[in-house]
Amino acid sequence: MTYCLAMSLAEGLVFASDSRTNAGVDYVTTFSKMHVFTPASDRIFLVLTAGNLATTQEVLHHLKRDLDAADAKESLRTVRYLFEAAQYLGRVSCEVQRSHAVAMQKAGFSTEGSFILGGQIRGQAHGLFLVYPQGNFISASPETPYLQIGETKYGKPGLDRVIDARLALEDGARLALVSLDATMRSNISVGPPLEVAICPKDGFAIARYLNLKLESPFYRALREQWQAGLREAFRHLPRFEWEGG
Amino acid sequence: MTYCLAMSLAEGLVFASDSRTNAGVDYVTTFSKMHVFTPASDRIFLVLTAGNLATTQEVLHHLKRDLDAADAKESLRTVRYLFEAAQYLGRVSCEVQRSHAVAMQKAGFSTEGSFILGGQIRGQAHGLFLVYPQGNFISASPETPYLQIGETKYGKPGLDRVIDARLALEDGARLALVSLDATMRSNISVGPPLEVAICPKDGFAIARYLNLKLESPFYRALREQWQAGLREAFRHLPRFEWEGG
Repeated sequence: MTYCLAMSLAEGLVFASDSRTNAGVDYVTTFSKMHVFTPASDRIFLVLTAGNLATTQEVLHHLKRDLDAADAKESLRTVRYLFEAAQYLGRVSCEVQRSHAVAMQKAGFSTEGSFILGGQIRGQAHGLFLVYPQGNFISASPETPYLQIGETKYGKPGLDRVIDARLALEDGARLALVSLDATMRSNISVGPPLEVAICPKDGFAIARYLNLKLESPFYRALREQWQAGLREAFRHLPRFEWEGG
Repeated sequence: MTYCLAMSLAEGLVFASDSRTNAGVDYVTTFSKMHVFTPASDRIFLVLTAGNLATTQEVLHHLKRDLDAADAKESLRTVRYLFEAAQYLGRVSCEVQRSHAVAMQKAGFSTEGSFILGGQIRGQAHGLFLVYPQGNFISASPETPYLQIGETKYGKPGLDRVIDARLALEDGARLALVSLDATMRSNISVGPPLEVAICPKDGFAIARYLNLKLESPFYRALREQWQAGLREAFRHLPRFEWEGG
């Protein structure tokens, strides 16, 4: 399993992902699920991946090959709008899945992969898309400034309580880590290291990148502080009337 | 959808459930999912239900009919151990599901129902069982003192951070409400009123019962306080090193 999320805030984009991959509980491995493309100085794309690892890896290979080919009809270099990048990624994903569909169906496995694609093309606003296994996509909005893929439920309530498109990028990154931490506590198939990337708008670069292990001092401090804060919040909940006080 | 949970604490049992039932988004109704059986003065059982409403209602009808029948081979009155009540409930559930299986499969619907059964029989410890749609069951334990059915994921991280079998019953009830509240915020198919019941051990009765609407002053205060506490906890998370401070 996997849990990735990204936020489109007024100040820019925040991306976060875990690194655990598993085929059953006895084949657990670590792969980065965060991929950066800067095919020209006027654009940056980050892609987060969830689902079938063979699918998502092959999709990324296709994206890179299209960037290498001078005569590629379409690539992350040629797209003119961010949504065209999402469209293109969705098309590549569907093609990859189709090419393995028969064999995978026979074996009873799913080829499905999901993607979050975020970034910016100069002259346009930064943005964020979730590309479904079927190749269609939705974008984040000021009302719902985050998107999630993979094991999304455990980390959602905390997000929903704090998220706001006006959050500072660092606050967004802290919130993403809190959401990942909640997920890791409840689902062992989501695991460290955690990756976090911050892309301020109009910067066309990753300004901050963190790769956090469980024992990283910052991540440990964040977990302990969050846990302590939640317990404190719990202690201050109102008493039932029969308790008095 | 549904979200029910129960806790087996050192001091006794806590039960909590939402009341929303839906067949699609355009047929949303309210049904209590908390059912109490006190067939004799030496025993009490509480049953929480999730899944197909026709299944869970018919199972409850069977349980009541068996209690009415003086010659019933087995009922909540005749079982000698709490696990026998779980076994019996599982058997009834499987029979009910089997009786509708063909028609339901043809229509593409699931007959599955899940149950949490908790209570106490005099001379034995209080306890808690989750009865699966297949009729088998697991019990809560000092290490994992809670059980959930229905839409369980959103409300789990909060639970996991605070739960402890040594919690006071009132704290358990507050924690259950926090868990229900997290779920309701993220899934509109889980909804009020919320029911909470507290059964102290060796009491063989429900000592406290609450039916909380969204606008109930206590529930509103609890939600606001929890939201404020979480935001406060978030504000106190450690800064990244590049932020200084």
